[in-house]
Amino acid sequence: MASIFTRIINGEIPCHLIGEDEDNFAFLDIFPLRPGHILVVPKQEVDYIFDLPEKQLVSLHVFSKKIAVAQIKAFPCKRIGTAVIGLEVPHAHIHLVPMNQTSDLDFTQPKLSISQSDLEEHAKAIRSHL
Amino acid sequence: MASIFTRIINGEIPCHLIGEDEDNFAFLDIFPLRPGHILVVPKQEVDYIFDLPEKQLVSLHVFSKKIAVAQIKAFPCKRIGTAVIGLEVPHAHIHLVPMNQTSDLDFTQPKLSISQSDLEEHAKAIRSHL
Repeated sequence: MASIFTRIINGEIPCHLIGEDEDNFAFLDIFPLRPGHILVVPKQEVDYIFDLPEKQLVSLHVFSKKIAVAQIKAFPCKRIGTAVIGLEVPHAHIHLVPMNQTSDLDFTQPKLSISQSDLEEHAKAIRSHL
Repeated sequence: MASIFTRIINGEIPCHLIGEDEDNFAFLDIFPLRPGHILVVPKQEVDYIFDLPEKQLVSLHVFSKKIAVAQIKAFPCKRIGTAVIGLEVPHAHIHLVPMNQTSDLDFTQPKLSISQSDLEEHAKAIRSHL
């Protein structure tokens, strides 16, 4: 069965799209640690990021940089932190999180609750810098 | 002044080396979240990872994969998690952490205290898989 991320990529499940290219897809995390928290996913459905073919791994990281550069313009912060955990959804993904302090990247903390309309405003703000 | 990581790379400060190539350097974090926690650093001293030239960013991630593949053989776990935070040392670095649960990548938790001799055994175990 397709992962939830593949179903988002295929348009079967709605998302707040940030951007995509041939190999990759970026959208807002609906359970964000911080406002503007993005997930970047390879379109190829691979569970463990280090199992991606090198070409896809490289593409994913180059694309993530492009997204992070736009993200920090819409969500000014000290820097965009990144994390790859992957214990919940079996489809590799990079978290891009606007950070001002170490705890902003603590995935054990409660997630924020942000309305769908605010999430769409956030996505639009990031997209405007791409 | 050179960053503490540049001083480690230059051999001015000792480390438990994992491996290096032309562009990158990997060694054990002496304040690990989990045993076998590695830092991967570009030799080019750049504070923010997304300020690295694309060639160096790609090189860093390809090298990190090679290190992570050896690391998980020496420290079997569900997967190697990665994080880039960068609020403390102004020299970009990727954390590679053997993970079994989300809290294993929580940088707000107290760090482990591991003896220098045990750290060197850990480094040797990882190097044996490179």
